[in-house]
This record gives sequence, structure tokens and C-alpha cells, in this order.
Amino acid sequence: MYYIGVDLGGTNIAVGIVDENDKIIKKGSVPTKPERGADAIVADMAALSKSLLADLGVPLSQVAWAGVATPGTADSERGVVVYANNIPFLDYPLAANLSSLLDGVPVHIENDANAAAKAEAIAGVAKGVKYSVMITLGTGLGGGIVLDGEVYSGFNFAGAELGHMVIEKDGRQCSCGRRGCWEAYSSATGLVNITKDRIADSRKAGRKTIMEDMIGGDISKVSARTAFSAMKQGDEVASEVVDEYIGYLACGLGNIINIFQPEVLSIGGGICGEGDYLLKPLKEKLFFKETYTKEGTPQTRIEIAALGNDAGIIGAAVLGK
Amino acid sequence: MYYIGVDLGGTNIAVGIVDENDKIIKKGSVPTKPERGADAIVADMAALSKSLLADLGVPLSQVAWAGVATPGTADSERGVVVYANNIPFLDYPLAANLSSLLDGVPVHIENDANAAAKAEAIAGVAKGVKYSVMITLGTGLGGGIVLDGEVYSGFNFAGAELGHMVIEKDGRQCSCGRRGCWEAYSSATGLVNITKDRIADSRKAGRKTIMEDMIGGDISKVSARTAFSAMKQGDEVASEVVDEYIGYLACGLGNIINIFQPEVLSIGGGICGEGDYLLKPLKEKLFFKETYTKEGTPQTRIEIAALGNDAGIIGAAVLGK
Repeated sequence: MYYIGVDLGGTNIAVGIVDENDKIIKKGSVPTKPERGADAIVADMAALSKSLLADLGVPLSQVAWAGVATPGTADSERGVVVYANNIPFLDYPLAANLSSLLDGVPVHIENDANAAAKAEAIAGVAKGVKYSVMITLGTGLGGGIVLDGEVYSGFNFAGAELGHMVIEKDGRQCSCGRRGCWEAYSSATGLVNITKDRIADSRKAGRKTIMEDMIGGDISKVSARTAFSAMKQGDEVASEVVDEYIGYLACGLGNIINIFQPEVLSIGGGICGEGDYLLKPLKEKLFFKETYTKEGTPQTRIEIAALGNDAGIIGAAVLGK
Repeated sequence: MYYIGVDLGGTNIAVGIVDENDKIIKKGSVPTKPERGADAIVADMAALSKSLLADLGVPLSQVAWAGVATPGTADSERGVVVYANNIPFLDYPLAANLSSLLDGVPVHIENDANAAAKAEAIAGVAKGVKYSVMITLGTGLGGGIVLDGEVYSGFNFAGAELGHMVIEKDGRQCSCGRRGCWEAYSSATGLVNITKDRIADSRKAGRKTIMEDMIGGDISKVSARTAFSAMKQGDEVASEVVDEYIGYLACGLGNIINIFQPEVLSIGGGICGEGDYLLKPLKEKLFFKETYTKEGTPQTRIEIAALGNDAGIIGAAVLGK
């Protein structure tokens, strides 16, 4: 049998056909264009799925189910997207509507960060593990909790918002309305904001930093790569930015460990491309400063997520498992 | 059938005989005297259990199981206390040893905060609810998570340490070694520390507070009741202390909601005796400042725990369920 995995984002609808080994055998994407409304988006999901299946010569009768990883709050039991921030879904029966366009193939839905966590638990770094948690460092900080093979998202499907755990009371303003959320520090956006603040501080203090040259003196050009890149060239201010960023990341991860004690805690998102520049100091801070686990107790493994950009498609495709 | 519930604390061993309606029908206690060592403590658990059963005329053959709520990390699968802070248990086979003193009655063990949460889920304010979380505000801040009737404590049984979630990075020193843990602010000890700090600030600023009279000018006499009591008499500094305390409590509870979205989040411990003086401003802060749940999404219910001091015994007695 085959499985359709749909990764719905604000920019693109990515669809993959996945085999019984959880491998993507063909994929494609089309623009989301959210302003079109929900029905047009779902029609495109179905059309792209059918086109990929046709290319492979696989009939719909050989598709066991389709899954959709969507932003927002997804009621996975009823197949309804309760709410999404940047896509026009409001109590929208996504599963039923897509299923009817796919000749009745069953459709499962899940929040995108939760689906990515399930992908890692079934086919990635947390494979074979009973309890795992994944965070994704992107524009926001997404969280997914997988317990005994099942996504955990609370009684109203709005849980696992790990990025909206306050780690600095009355701290940085978060897009959610609270102040001091982990997301405000440890997302890619958080890294950009820390970098901007420290460049501004350097200007006031008359400290030199090559980050000024990298951004041509224009603070709006700071990206999530600026500080890591300058640090690798020996820049002191940049090293301090990275140290501060990793400090907040370790603080939040320490909380997740104390709360969940998952066997595997995986980290996804673009910043993971920094590899050991991120992971090595992170583990040092985490194990020497931030955890509570008693000596002798088995320790959570911290891993870079394995599935990268495919986590959404694979996560969607395994939702029926 | 009957059930034995043992609530082991640093000061007392409390034992209760519980019926099929989860009611305590007889209870008693003896001093723990931790310095005696583990075996003597367990012998007393067994002796007190037998004595209570004899008073009731219930033979051991009518006891389905015994349960022990213990401080520390309890491996509930193996029945071994991995570690406890103030009781001499280190990889101690508590379940097996107590069972052999009770003619082979099966014995279950669980961390005390987890057992209290299970008690509330089975016989208290979270009865009939699928997902619930309980916090206990005492010397520390204990947490318990009950999902689908089962205590969740992670792969190494050391999870649910909700009090050791940092909510103010680099904040107050916590007994666990981290800084800024929720426990350092929202436990009874945290309230005492906030009260002491604000009295000290008032001295410096020359502000009057009736808390000075209540403690006879001796800062070491501050208790968890001082600020609430003075606030009820109209004291302004005390009102600020209570407001600050409840602010931290709301911040941590907001985190727990964003992470777990439990249907019921219950609060136990002595401070709950303040009733609406605690609960009313807490709910206001929580729902107007600290949550993330979208409008229209069902909201977590915040409740004062129902079982009070009996939560440990009842929680222990229902561990076999």
C-alpha cells in the first residue's frame, strides 16, 4: 500500500507519496495562496496527489490513507481544523472535504509540529522509543509530544505549545500576547532579535563587530545566520550572541526534560544546520547547568532531527499508524 | 475488597484502609524517623497496616493490594525507589520488601505528588476526566500528570517535576541547583521568601507594614500565612506580596496549560486554605494575561484539590487501578 502526505504551509502545499517503509517515493508542491480560501487549497491538495500517483502509475485504490500536517489547532478526532493563524481555516472539515476529492480515501489531520514529532518517532531519531518530544526552531518554536506512538495535544487539541512556555517572566514580548515565552528567545526570530539587540549595544559601547560589515550597517539585514557566521570568523560580540541564544535554548530544554523526561528530545529547523556549533555548547549548558535528573538516572538523549524538510510530509503520511 | 494506602513523608508514615468507594475507613500514623534506615520504616508500614486491619476485623486475604506514595523517584514498574532526598532509599526494593511483610499482598509504589494527582483523577476534582494535572504547593512545588488514568513520569520515572520548570531565567536560587525555578517562587517556601524580601524593601524605603508587628520585627518568623493575613487587614505591602506571589503562580500555570491543555488543573497544599483570596485573582491573571488558548477553544478548569491531606493515602490506595 501507499500513503499520501500533505505538508500545508503558509507559502507552499507540499505533497509526497510515501511507501510502506516511510520513504517518500515522489513529491511535488504548489503555492498555497491562502487568500483563495480553504476549498481551493484542498482542491489543489487533491489534484497534486492524483497527479503524483498518476506519474507513479499507482491507483487510488492502493492508497491506504492520506494525512495532512496543518498549521494551527487540528482536532484530529473529528478531522476539523479549529483555527489557523495564516490560513483561512475556521472550524473547517478538512479531512472530510479532502477525502471526498480522493474518492473516499480516509484522511487524517494533525498540527504540523505534532506531525513532525510523530515522523521522528516513527521514522527518525526517536524511532523505537516510547516517549519523545521534538521542538522545531523556525519563525516560531513548535513543539510535538509523542507518547506510546500517539501524538499528545491535550483535551482540546491545543496543547504541546512548548514555545509558549514563559522562561523569563515579563521578558520579551511574544507574538502570542504573553511576555518572555521560550519562542521569543529560541526561535530563529528570537535569534535575530538577540543579534539586533547586541549589535545595537555594541554601537552604543563603541565595540567593533564584523557583523556590521556583514549587514552593511543595516540592522534590518540581520538573519538567523549572522551571529553564527561571524562567530566562526572569531568575532567576540557574535560569540556572546550565540552564547546568549544557546543559554535560552538550554533553559527551555532543561524545562522540557524536567517535565517529560523523554528518552529522546529532538531539535529540528534551519538553525540545526549549525551542527556541532549549536549542539556541543548546548549539551554542555544543559547537562552542567540546567537539568535536575539525579546522577545515575538514565538521561534524555538530545538529537538533531533526522528528517529535515521531509518531516511534514512523512509525519502526515504516518498519521494513520 | 479493601486497599492499604501508605503516605510516606519525612516526618510521618500515614496509613489508611480504603474501601471500594475510595473512602478511607480507618487511618493512623507513626513517626518516620528516617535515621532508622529503610527496613525499619517498612516494618512500621506493615505493622501499622496490620493493626488497622485488625481493628476493623478485616483479614489480609480481603486486601486486594497496598500502595505507597513516597518522596523521590519511584520506579513504579519495578517497585523500586531509585532515590529520595530526605529518606534513606537508594535503589531500594520497597514494593517487594513491604509485600513480603504483608503475606504477599501485591504492593504498588509511586512518587507522592504523582499519587496525589492520581487520587484527584480517580476520586477528587478531576474524576471522570481524561487528562489532568495537579500541583501541590508545599515546602516544594510538586507536580503530577495523569493521562488516560495512568500517571505519566517519563522513561526514567523522574519526570513531572513541574516545580523545576524555570520561569525566570537566572532568577532565585532553587534547591535543585537551577535558578529561577517555579518552585522558588510559588511553593510555600517561595511565598515566605517573597514576603521576607518585601519586608526588607519596606524597611529600606521607610514604608509601614503591619507584617512587622505580626513577626515582632523578627524576619525569621515570616510564614506562608503572614502576607495573606496582613492583606486581609488592608496592609498595602502585604497586598503587593500576594499580588507578586499570584503573578508567579499564574505564570507557571499558564505554562502548564500551554503544554498540557489538561481538562482539569488542580492545586493542592496548605496555601489553598486561602480559598477565594487565592483563586479569584489567580484566575483573573491567568485568563487575562497568561494563556494562549484561542477564543472559542474549551478552557482548562482550575480547581482547588478536593482530597486535602488524604490525597497521599487515597492516591497510594488507588495505584493498582
